[in-house]
Amino acid sequence: MKHISSTQNAYIKELLKLQEKSRERKKKGLFLVEGQREISLVLKGGYEIDTVLFVTELSFEENLEEIKSQTANCIEITKEVYQKLAYRDTTEGIIAVVKAKNFDLDAIEFNTTTPLVLVMESIEKPGNIGAMLRTADAAKVDAVFIANPKTDLFNPNIIRSSVGCVFTNQIATGTSEDIIAYLQEHNINIYSATLQNSNEYHKNDYTKATALVVGTEATGLTQIWRDQATQNINIPMQGEIDSMNVSVAAAILTFEAKRQRNFVQ
Amino acid sequence: MKHISSTQNAYIKELLKLQEKSRERKKKGLFLVEGQREISLVLKGGYEIDTVLFVTELSFEENLEEIKSQTANCIEITKEVYQKLAYRDTTEGIIAVVKAKNFDLDAIEFNTTTPLVLVMESIEKPGNIGAMLRTADAAKVDAVFIANPKTDLFNPNIIRSSVGCVFTNQIATGTSEDIIAYLQEHNINIYSATLQNSNEYHKNDYTKATALVVGTEATGLTQIWRDQATQNINIPMQGEIDSMNVSVAAAILTFEAKRQRNFVQ
Repeated sequence: MKHISSTQNAYIKELLKLQEKSRERKKKGLFLVEGQREISLVLKGGYEIDTVLFVTELSFEENLEEIKSQTANCIEITKEVYQKLAYRDTTEGIIAVVKAKNFDLDAIEFNTTTPLVLVMESIEKPGNIGAMLRTADAAKVDAVFIANPKTDLFNPNIIRSSVGCVFTNQIATGTSEDIIAYLQEHNINIYSATLQNSNEYHKNDYTKATALVVGTEATGLTQIWRDQATQNINIPMQGEIDSMNVSVAAAILTFEAKRQRNFVQ
Repeated sequence: MKHISSTQNAYIKELLKLQEKSRERKKKGLFLVEGQREISLVLKGGYEIDTVLFVTELSFEENLEEIKSQTANCIEITKEVYQKLAYRDTTEGIIAVVKAKNFDLDAIEFNTTTPLVLVMESIEKPGNIGAMLRTADAAKVDAVFIANPKTDLFNPNIIRSSVGCVFTNQIATGTSEDIIAYLQEHNINIYSATLQNSNEYHKNDYTKATALVVGTEATGLTQIWRDQATQNINIPMQGEIDSMNVSVAAAILTFEAKRQRNFVQ
């Protein structure tokens, strides 16, 4: 087995660039994932692992063998090298180099005629995107659509804040126009979260094919989502502050839909 | 008007300690708040401002005069002094030194016989506490109870992540035992979020006097909340990940209660 002990090793330097730069990830079609749970979710999500790097001294749980068995290249690294590469403070001692996937709309498959999908438009903060992906996993929505994406989904902060749910959700990205066309073609009702010309979210029937759409905290959804909505919806706010964190809003809407569906399917 | 231009000024050094140390805040009974909106909410919340410090060169909106009129001491500071004191990156140029309040259970007042309260036990992350206070404000719950608090509520990160809602909510802190005794005395039903011996959250009636109780992400609620609950409740999770961010869970529960109440009161 290959062994790397120098933080100045050329391959390690290449990986550091992958960790830090979206452009590098795009160019190479690779990204890094650290932590056993996250790497397990990568495999569950059908991703291909290019290389796995791990610290031998650190003890591992049983699934290291499983991870190694699914990987062509295994490299032993020292703690120092690991700490150089790792994005988080914890020291699980395992990092995978994973092959990126495309998030094509055409690849989306529904197992139901009444899918529930979450759409987020132009969200910038990785923490908010990650939080919504985590909620989407918990609710087992049928797909997550990211319209006009502002952030590379393989950003380490999205991987971390989604606790790996960026791999477990069925995700597609596209322009708002393309996603709206897709939803309309598939007869999925569009509920756009916006104050203008909206009714209260809980007054609608989300048991049919439903897309719940949220926009940025700063400027909300773009006009096209408001114009093309089956219904614009709002969450009543009665306090001193007239805004809500977008990931909290998405959770309230998603679980209202799940409640109406009685958490079946 | 007094003017301070040195970051080495003794008073400025004292304020820095207030910003950084919970112990200092407790000793002096003072804390710092920056930003016009937050300071407005401090006043709305009935807090007394001890001193206001502001950068003259920066332009202010109309409410500076209102803030100044409610403050005994106004001090002009330079941009450098402001940047030394400020916790956030933005440069609104105004900071208030505010007198702390106690969060006594006995001070809680309800305007209704069917209050809705949110209880959080032992939450450590200021960001999660702040997010829940923001949700509690949006839902206009009747009170927020913080059981076995781990973090000083005047922590600058709580003020920031709550966008000032730490001032707009009616808050009490206490031991879990004291808060349970209070809730039972006031005939408020206790719904503890926990997996054990629980039913699905949406199957309960929250239109009566209701306390929704959430615990830490790591270990959940302590046993006493499970034992003393009117009903333990869970949010069904159907994905790969079996946990949910506590502030997201609190929002789902709180807005289900609001929905059942049709957002009246």
